[in-house]
Amino acid sequence: MVGRRKSGEFDLIERVFRPLSRAAPGAFALGNDGALLTPPAGASLVVTKDVMVAGVHYPEGEDPATVARRLLRVNLSDLAAMGAEASSYALGLALPEDADDAWVQAFAAGLARDQEAFGVALVGGDTVAARGPAVLSLTAFGWVAGEACLTRAGAGEGDDIYVSGTIGDAALGLRAVQGDLPALAAEDRAALAARFRLPEPRLALGAALIGIATCAIDVSDGLVADLGHICEESGVAARVTAGAVPFSEPARRALAAGEAAVADLVSGGDDYELLFCAAPSARAVIEALGQRLDLPLTRIGIVEPGAGATILGADGEPLALHRAGYTHF
Amino acid sequence: MVGRRKSGEFDLIERVFRPLSRAAPGAFALGNDGALLTPPAGASLVVTKDVMVAGVHYPEGEDPATVARRLLRVNLSDLAAMGAEASSYALGLALPEDADDAWVQAFAAGLARDQEAFGVALVGGDTVAARGPAVLSLTAFGWVAGEACLTRAGAGEGDDIYVSGTIGDAALGLRAVQGDLPALAAEDRAALAARFRLPEPRLALGAALIGIATCAIDVSDGLVADLGHICEESGVAARVTAGAVPFSEPARRALAAGEAAVADLVSGGDDYELLFCAAPSARAVIEALGQRLDLPLTRIGIVEPGAGATILGADGEPLALHRAGYTHF
Repeated sequence: MVGRRKSGEFDLIERVFRPLSRAAPGAFALGNDGALLTPPAGASLVVTKDVMVAGVHYPEGEDPATVARRLLRVNLSDLAAMGAEASSYALGLALPEDADDAWVQAFAAGLARDQEAFGVALVGGDTVAARGPAVLSLTAFGWVAGEACLTRAGAGEGDDIYVSGTIGDAALGLRAVQGDLPALAAEDRAALAARFRLPEPRLALGAALIGIATCAIDVSDGLVADLGHICEESGVAARVTAGAVPFSEPARRALAAGEAAVADLVSGGDDYELLFCAAPSARAVIEALGQRLDLPLTRIGIVEPGAGATILGADGEPLALHRAGYTHF
Repeated sequence: MVGRRKSGEFDLIERVFRPLSRAAPGAFALGNDGALLTPPAGASLVVTKDVMVAGVHYPEGEDPATVARRLLRVNLSDLAAMGAEASSYALGLALPEDADDAWVQAFAAGLARDQEAFGVALVGGDTVAARGPAVLSLTAFGWVAGEACLTRAGAGEGDDIYVSGTIGDAALGLRAVQGDLPALAAEDRAALAARFRLPEPRLALGAALIGIATCAIDVSDGLVADLGHICEESGVAARVTAGAVPFSEPARRALAAGEAAVADLVSGGDDYELLFCAAPSARAVIEALGQRLDLPLTRIGIVEPGAGATILGADGEPLALHRAGYTHF
């Protein structure tokens, strides 16, 4: 958990990050070449890795605690999409040489806060200095019983398509972060920005969907693109009715104010809701699950033979969609 | 295994990296949010993560296949230090926007070659474009039976201190890569440079040392610094005789030619040999192990009460050591 060449700066890092490993005995207080993760009896490990770059995935001046929490949450969301119970994570940080103590301490404080919220601990990693923007890599670990995880493959013809929560808030939130959406009230802009900054990994939902859902993915690239991933991996087509896609109150006000079109919301990324399929026979179970979790699980379409995802607009014709762009702040 | 925003560039990356996952069914051909690693019965997972930055950990113009192989090997070396059997790895790549197809293909070819050599497979990761130098993160996975891994803690008073192979070659090799060491023959410079570029993870040795060694670490920061890590984590002191430290023929010729001092070799990093301790009762077993592996295992010192690592020179006085520096190419 220290750079290859120690310096005062990295001693700070060691001191700041070490407390984050306390709950994980196999982390050896970050004083080892690696960590030991002992599986629950009969469990398999689920592992996922995401990289975030300053100025690409978040604005350069973003609050470091928020950056840390978002980095952790987008990875936990991948675990949720596989139905895993989150356990721990490792960090790989390339920090600009001018990253100061306050930045690192605030970053670690953000991790500490979300570790508590999600019951995970830091088990290791590496921190190096680099010219250029911060590059933050996180590897998250979770467990599933046996080998029973959810994947993107498995959607079958006639399956219902569901999505949790609401869609498009994060894409609007990104615009709010950038100072856009002038027609919206300040509190709507703040609510949308919060959805971009601090997504909610749907861990309880993912774990509960094992044995119920035929496939799952988290909505990171956007509803349309991620539905396309499911179609590709499952070898099916998907048909979604735009009118059925759940939008939040602020998103609906953005639509009404002409700040966005439905096509923007279903194409926008970073919602980190779960998109999943299930046989029609599971409708009652899924409805009860949504009530138990106090989380809307909305049926938005159906799986068909063929290939590719189609979103039907109010006129029954396929929506014209823009391709999700590559974002630079 | 693709960037958050797809583009032609990332389609290439997907196409190039996907074949590297073939041997790991739990990688889902990189077409999933994460990977599933099923442990051998009763095994625990060992996980380690190292980050390399272009221009810091390797020269900007370095052969991409060599960069890839070194990235994998330094992580496998951490698994070796814990006595784990290497299994798989995940990649987190932040590549400059001008990284071309040839670079990525050569990088993947390097991984393919070493996957074969070390019996590991790619199970997932993330690739993003970034301004600034390439930042390459790798998380390696291995297994140990039960929870029986080697750590840096556990050295006891009276233990012997051993090191595998030879020490200081990589530090000299780094200088050779930089065009230094004019007094040496070209073949010596090449041999030393190869030791820096392509370290040999001591996986068979590490696995065999479980139950024999009381602690272990791989020599990445340098013999002195890594012995210091063992002292710190084990709560002991270490006394090493410089004259007992094994040097290669090219390193001895560098000493004879005045190109380096013993202090340089015992302070220099990146050898990736294993440094370990064991009770004197294990001497015969360790000698036999070295013969079986055809790998010199040299007894270089002894563990004592106290704190800190001391290297004694030919005059019986502690060597004056320079602190390992922070390297920029």
